[in-house]
Amino acid sequence: MEFVMKPIGVIHSPFTNKKQTPIQPTRSQAIGRVEVFPEFADGLRDLEGFSHIILLYVFHKSHGYTLRVKPFLDDQLRGLFATRHPCRPNPIGLSVARLLARRENILDIEGVDMLDGTPLLDIKPYVPDFDVRTDVKTGWYETRSKD
Amino acid sequence: MEFVMKPIGVIHSPFTNKKQTPIQPTRSQAIGRVEVFPEFADGLRDLEGFSHIILLYVFHKSHGYTLRVKPFLDDQLRGLFATRHPCRPNPIGLSVARLLARRENILDIEGVDMLDGTPLLDIKPYVPDFDVRTDVKTGWYETRSKD
Repeated sequence: MEFVMKPIGVIHSPFTNKKQTPIQPTRSQAIGRVEVFPEFADGLRDLEGFSHIILLYVFHKSHGYTLRVKPFLDDQLRGLFATRHPCRPNPIGLSVARLLARRENILDIEGVDMLDGTPLLDIKPYVPDFDVRTDVKTGWYETRSKD
Repeated sequence: MEFVMKPIGVIHSPFTNKKQTPIQPTRSQAIGRVEVFPEFADGLRDLEGFSHIILLYVFHKSHGYTLRVKPFLDDQLRGLFATRHPCRPNPIGLSVARLLARRENILDIEGVDMLDGTPLLDIKPYVPDFDVRTDVKTGWYETRSKD
């Protein structure tokens, strides 16, 4: 079984290589721009009412994967699916960004942690009722060796 | 440009048709089971330390899309990307579930809102430092007509 995904846009960011790129959007105040292809612009109506959006995108510079990886924030090998490492069987990235403004098919966003030119797969509104959980445990991340 | 995604597993749930299925996982205490294909099982190590996981999956029963949709919780047409509607150009679903237990390649989860047999694309640990935002505005959802 296979599913073919085609980008609906491209994410522009200040980061042109992995070393510059923040590890997660909460660690970034970087400004970026989401260019949604004009044929999808009509689907962006009402999005400007939301302060935050979920971006799903392709880690397009990641090739291959291993099932044990050393997270950027730790020095031990961990199971890949217990990390946010970009090299995954389906290399889909997920980031929550602040939506600063929409101008037709262009979204100005803050808190960018993706590479310039990242292919965009989907945009969803960030809704705390759906997306926020309390009383959360975070395993190795709680006792990570780096910060 | 196209990206081919292959499932890494399948999600088992009590829901065999759309009408039974909860609108969002926070509205569900339903128990489900994620069956990760054995060849990926090694990537699940360390996941049991996390109380919640992010599941990315295919809305496999959704076909086609329109750029304006009526959300389940509202009675006005909204831009598709300002909703969580399952019919999308790239029909990728995102749910946060509570991880109850892991037995090798099987995950018991609570808070299931997907159809039985849903193809799984990725699992990520849910980390409030990355995934939680405060001071959030939610546009039409705040003034929605239904609940």
